[in-house]
Amino acid sequence: MEFSLKNMGTAAKVASRFVSQTSGKDRDRALMAMAEALLKGTDEIVRANGVDLAEGRAGGLSEPLLERLSLDEGRVRSMAKGLEEIAALPDPLGKGDRWINDQGLEISRVKVPLGVIGMIYESRPNVTADASGLCLKAGNAVILRGGREAVNSNRAIASLIRGALRESGFPEDSVQLLDDPGREATQALMALDDLDVLIPRGGKGLKEAVRVHAKVPVIMTGMGLCHLYVDRSADLGMAVDIAVNAKAQRPSVCNSIETLLVHSEVAPAFLPLLSSAMEEAGVELRGDGRVRSLVSMASATDEDWDTEYLALILSVKMVDSVEEAIDHIDRYGSGHSEAIVTGDYGTSRKFLDQVDASSVYVNASTRFTDGSVFGFGAEMGISTQKLHARGPMGVEHLTTVKYRVLGSGQVRG
Amino acid sequence: MEFSLKNMGTAAKVASRFVSQTSGKDRDRALMAMAEALLKGTDEIVRANGVDLAEGRAGGLSEPLLERLSLDEGRVRSMAKGLEEIAALPDPLGKGDRWINDQGLEISRVKVPLGVIGMIYESRPNVTADASGLCLKAGNAVILRGGREAVNSNRAIASLIRGALRESGFPEDSVQLLDDPGREATQALMALDDLDVLIPRGGKGLKEAVRVHAKVPVIMTGMGLCHLYVDRSADLGMAVDIAVNAKAQRPSVCNSIETLLVHSEVAPAFLPLLSSAMEEAGVELRGDGRVRSLVSMASATDEDWDTEYLALILSVKMVDSVEEAIDHIDRYGSGHSEAIVTGDYGTSRKFLDQVDASSVYVNASTRFTDGSVFGFGAEMGISTQKLHARGPMGVEHLTTVKYRVLGSGQVRG
Repeated sequence: MEFSLKNMGTAAKVASRFVSQTSGKDRDRALMAMAEALLKGTDEIVRANGVDLAEGRAGGLSEPLLERLSLDEGRVRSMAKGLEEIAALPDPLGKGDRWINDQGLEISRVKVPLGVIGMIYESRPNVTADASGLCLKAGNAVILRGGREAVNSNRAIASLIRGALRESGFPEDSVQLLDDPGREATQALMALDDLDVLIPRGGKGLKEAVRVHAKVPVIMTGMGLCHLYVDRSADLGMAVDIAVNAKAQRPSVCNSIETLLVHSEVAPAFLPLLSSAMEEAGVELRGDGRVRSLVSMASATDEDWDTEYLALILSVKMVDSVEEAIDHIDRYGSGHSEAIVTGDYGTSRKFLDQVDASSVYVNASTRFTDGSVFGFGAEMGISTQKLHARGPMGVEHLTTVKYRVLGSGQVRG
Repeated sequence: MEFSLKNMGTAAKVASRFVSQTSGKDRDRALMAMAEALLKGTDEIVRANGVDLAEGRAGGLSEPLLERLSLDEGRVRSMAKGLEEIAALPDPLGKGDRWINDQGLEISRVKVPLGVIGMIYESRPNVTADASGLCLKAGNAVILRGGREAVNSNRAIASLIRGALRESGFPEDSVQLLDDPGREATQALMALDDLDVLIPRGGKGLKEAVRVHAKVPVIMTGMGLCHLYVDRSADLGMAVDIAVNAKAQRPSVCNSIETLLVHSEVAPAFLPLLSSAMEEAGVELRGDGRVRSLVSMASATDEDWDTEYLALILSVKMVDSVEEAIDHIDRYGSGHSEAIVTGDYGTSRKFLDQVDASSVYVNASTRFTDGSVFGFGAEMGISTQKLHARGPMGVEHLTTVKYRVLGSGQVRG
């Protein structure tokens, strides 16, 4: 297996050198061909997906997971549309600035592809198409490592995409799927020398595996332990609406909240409102002692503050100041998205300034942290680290820079 | 040791929260105080340096290394001047752009500090002052890990800097020196959770140690295996001048060249010129078989192509095309700085487009890859990786971004 992965790495490197030299127009043509291939191959994809669904059902996959895994004609059409939208984005490559330095050297700093990208994901099979499209758009080759439960769907999608690449005059190894089911394959990918960057998309378990096994530069995405703090000056109706949206609108995603912090002065008025709204939304509340002294609910332990539920569960804690809320977020937050509801100007600024996260909200739901909502187009994931990309990652973040220096014989004195 | 490093990490995190909230003016004031403290403490620094020099001499350190290690009044004055220059740079924080999205959210993307930076270096003790200054300028705390041979000098410098910070109202733990001499201390620093980024500055050995031990995001700097390719259309006089400058002007730095590639058509005319100029510059040449059939010199083995000499040695290889030169660079280059001497327009563009390195030169010396030469001010090092920073890294690269999102009750539909 190691040997074949090494071969995949070499093939990806060769392909990336080719793709890096293509024009934006050629890459867009290939993206359109990929979209068409998915549409034409709809039956093939749906059939392969049927095998995954049957195996998943037999293996006891939960209904929500089966729902996420499932592909029908409409979902294949969405994948194809996603690729067309990526084709319509401006070419991220070749742009830059240019200046003349003291020695008369003409220096340009231009955007170039990263090279070979490794992507690990366990999400829905549409990521196979999205990630392939975004990487190709930015002139990169990609090695994809999808979830075991979607392997047949991913194989069908990748195979159609590779066919379209070949027919467009691109090396089919610009997109490769690592479909060995073993955990060792994932670990070997994390250490593959030929990767210029590894992008894991997942929760705490994957993050920890990356920390232990990764030997190449990493952009960690998709891990979100987010908070909403309801300040003493909050509009309580607004706070309830935002809390319900941030928790329950789509609980399985990284920008939903896991913990609500409420100021003790408004807790007696706010908690009953929260409790009934959350009950209606089907959300289980778990509170600390002070919270439970006001409204009856399950008990939150220390472990709750540290848990990304990704489910209809919300832990609730009472605090006595915005500073205490910020300290709690500093300790338990994942640096993804954090929100405050407040009517106080100074408190809003303190929260914005002092909370260390990719996206900090005043009087809005954390659910807005998203590449397309922010206006960047399709996204590769949401980075929770600080290097290279922080927050929603678009095509732009799949590039690096190169300095091109034109001289006329200059040497350094 | 682990325990005390953990304490250093916690202290750095607390300090970084403080520093991140200071104004640019306050940070500049602290930088000026640090400069003044170094000047006032010159005797103290020079005395500590004397201990390092004596120990180094007793331990058999080479003369060039002793020279690099040595500090006198002039060098201390340069360190202080470096800090004053950093103070004079514009504040990298707080700048950004701002837009309104479809939901009416006001989104700003602003520059914020990275947080806690770990820096490993084996260079001259002036890095202790430079790195402290650059990190503080960008609102960060730093944990410094200098070379064992400079430990007394580094202690003296760090102690003066910490005193100046304290007197300026900053936490002295904004700058900490990890002075435990053991290799385990370095490895523990590479895995320290509290670091937002680790910046190792050094050669292949350090790079490999980082690959094995690092558990935090890394920006690798200071490793340079650079090439000069002399094309068949080169001005041979220019090629000789650039080769001598790129090899011999300062052989111990990462932007000097290690291998020269020469096109077979001009090799008979070029190699005798190169040989006599390099002899004059005290450079030992090591050639492949075809090179040695034209000019007598030592023999280059495969290991030579893979070696960063950092010394007055140059390996020389004959190639039959620019493509062969690019392939060699692709295989052995470290992605730092690569140069071609050519008179051919098409060849110059091919080299610029296809060579994958931070800085690619036409008709100029690789020695120009440098933050101040490029116009960025003082530099933290030269990154040879593609993520976050590539090429010379200035104050700008010690920052990340944060999205500040102002709403009026928006929830996601």
